[in-house]
Amino acid sequence: MSGLPVVVGVGLTAFAANRVDCTVRDLALEAALACMHDAGLMDLKAVQHGLTSYESDHFNRQMTLGALLHDHLGLTPLPNVRVEGGGATGALALRTAWAYVQSGLCDSILVYGAELNGRSVSTQTANQLFALSADFDWEMMVGGTYTAFYAAMMRAHMQRYGTTEAQCAHVAVRNRKNAQHNPLAQKPMDLTIEEVLNSRAVAEPYKLLDCSLLSDGAAALLLATEDWARAHSPVFARRPVVYFAATGCGSDTMRLGDRYPDITNFRGKRAAAQQAYAQLGISDPLAQIDVAELYDSYSGVEIQAVEDLGFVAAGEGGAAVASGLFDLGGRLPVNPSGGLLGRGAPVGATGIAQAIEIVQQLWGTVHPARQAANARRGLTDTHAGIGTLCVVNIFERRD
Amino acid sequence: MSGLPVVVGVGLTAFAANRVDCTVRDLALEAALACMHDAGLMDLKAVQHGLTSYESDHFNRQMTLGALLHDHLGLTPLPNVRVEGGGATGALALRTAWAYVQSGLCDSILVYGAELNGRSVSTQTANQLFALSADFDWEMMVGGTYTAFYAAMMRAHMQRYGTTEAQCAHVAVRNRKNAQHNPLAQKPMDLTIEEVLNSRAVAEPYKLLDCSLLSDGAAALLLATEDWARAHSPVFARRPVVYFAATGCGSDTMRLGDRYPDITNFRGKRAAAQQAYAQLGISDPLAQIDVAELYDSYSGVEIQAVEDLGFVAAGEGGAAVASGLFDLGGRLPVNPSGGLLGRGAPVGATGIAQAIEIVQQLWGTVHPARQAANARRGLTDTHAGIGTLCVVNIFERRD
Repeated sequence: MSGLPVVVGVGLTAFAANRVDCTVRDLALEAALACMHDAGLMDLKAVQHGLTSYESDHFNRQMTLGALLHDHLGLTPLPNVRVEGGGATGALALRTAWAYVQSGLCDSILVYGAELNGRSVSTQTANQLFALSADFDWEMMVGGTYTAFYAAMMRAHMQRYGTTEAQCAHVAVRNRKNAQHNPLAQKPMDLTIEEVLNSRAVAEPYKLLDCSLLSDGAAALLLATEDWARAHSPVFARRPVVYFAATGCGSDTMRLGDRYPDITNFRGKRAAAQQAYAQLGISDPLAQIDVAELYDSYSGVEIQAVEDLGFVAAGEGGAAVASGLFDLGGRLPVNPSGGLLGRGAPVGATGIAQAIEIVQQLWGTVHPARQAANARRGLTDTHAGIGTLCVVNIFERRD
Repeated sequence: MSGLPVVVGVGLTAFAANRVDCTVRDLALEAALACMHDAGLMDLKAVQHGLTSYESDHFNRQMTLGALLHDHLGLTPLPNVRVEGGGATGALALRTAWAYVQSGLCDSILVYGAELNGRSVSTQTANQLFALSADFDWEMMVGGTYTAFYAAMMRAHMQRYGTTEAQCAHVAVRNRKNAQHNPLAQKPMDLTIEEVLNSRAVAEPYKLLDCSLLSDGAAALLLATEDWARAHSPVFARRPVVYFAATGCGSDTMRLGDRYPDITNFRGKRAAAQQAYAQLGISDPLAQIDVAELYDSYSGVEIQAVEDLGFVAAGEGGAAVASGLFDLGGRLPVNPSGGLLGRGAPVGATGIAQAIEIVQQLWGTVHPARQAANARRGLTDTHAGIGTLCVVNIFERRD
């Protein structure tokens, strides 16, 4: 035993747009029950602690949604905590769960994330609400939107390194193709590079098919000490043991302008990765990581990420992506689940869903067509805003 | 050394209503700088980790305020996390910081909480926003408000135990009187029981002077391992060492109706206290705790709390309060800071401010007129909603 927390069970809902048939509590409960079922546990109250992950009070016209969901799951009077970090919320929740278990505060903790954007808000309202994630006083008030900030970063990357729109399109094609092997994915598609390049312009260099979507959905993961898992989960001994092995977190300025002229990449992501790698003595991530789920909110962001995570050198991400290095069957499969572009991104659930894909890759239980070969160590990369808060979590199979 | 985290420094702004002269980032920075000054540290970046505490995205028309404040404090690219738990947010933030330090994720963490309710919202809008903390679908839509829920709980307490309005008024008088010795308090007052009883009815049995107020303000506390504190803070060795010794958390249903007929007291608070007491082997809290800050959102809530925390038996809170047991100079001084009624309650800062009062009581650095005698162990009690999420934190001076 390593002393690190282990994953006891995982649960996911399908990711979809505009779920008007249910509330956010239905989604959270569905994921939580699926997680407990996966862990072979009959009673949600078998866990010692809850941890709720969702992005904003705005989407559900509800404050203290953490307490509400905790109650809806029947977890009272157990302790609970809600964690939020924008787009990185789910990954930050897992990081915090790691700390709760490692500190001895509890032996088991059910981490569940849910988001339902569509309910009672129009698309325009949703966009306005998302814009509140930028600095309200100094960015949103002058019309700044995330798509524009991301586009400016990619333009700078292209200018400095010669990265191309076709290289970005490779990501958009591959991730949606990977999603074809994921029955819970929102947007499985069989596209060509040309179709992406010819899709409607949104914010140059990004076209419609370079952009991820609004999603509704939920994810849950049960984290525990290895002792607790062996004592409580009847299925634990039947699967390979997957440890939550390392977690790093970094941050950057809210405003893109405050980073000028270094706006091609994500400083906070580099800091997060370095922390996580240091915990495991990883010096050559391309060789020492077997599978990864990266935060492809826009296609080019994955190119920036493979550089910041040290998979390739700065500026070499575009060519590396286009070479197939990160495709299924490539050296380091990236976003086998379909990523944000193909699987979808219900914000509070996204980081947890990324972790679930990695855990299932390490267990060897995903659809064979998207299974990475010999996967023993996997990484998730999740961020808020334009890399304003970045979390890197690493999971390992040890047997 | 005990291995428990220690308090390295504390910082507070004045609590006040309707701060229209500043933004929430100004308040957070003021508290954070005061905290670092208190710890004898010149550079905010001396810390390893940030932790932001605030209640809702609504008040500031801003999402990911945690990332924004982290940036405003100049803490990038350090890691950060935002924790939220309604009224218990600040206490939950400290509990989470405890876990971050105890897990080894960091050796020092700056916990800062801030709230600015008044900005760009009317009192009516603020009340509507606060009402979103109740279940939007099943409570707010039928007109449920917190004052009404609290009043119903106290009515039940009076009916079952014979608790009186005059006993509640004792809390309202004492806490505002204590606030007279706190220069940062929002509502120091010298009232009589009669003045409280004769104030305007709000929701029977609560009158205007039984109710706490909306407040703006911020608080910060630097938590660290003892090794880090000795190595980095030049003033640490000059003060008694105060450990963050125990933390408990419990929860209860969102809807009061779901607890019927047990609506006189707070089940989640009992669970939280029992966890914290178990960590320290406390069997007789009245004898083993020297000073406490309790969540007196309404006067009678303190009466309910002294029972749930085990200071006195169920039903005996009213008589115990009226006997002066919890007054300054009494056996266990409660709310020497003035509490929520006298000092004020900027939500995200409240739990941290309670802890700061306890730490300064243990250091012996508060105004002599509100100093508890021989204070070596102090407790904070903080909750969300109507006890929907409860956190009990205990601090100890050991020397």
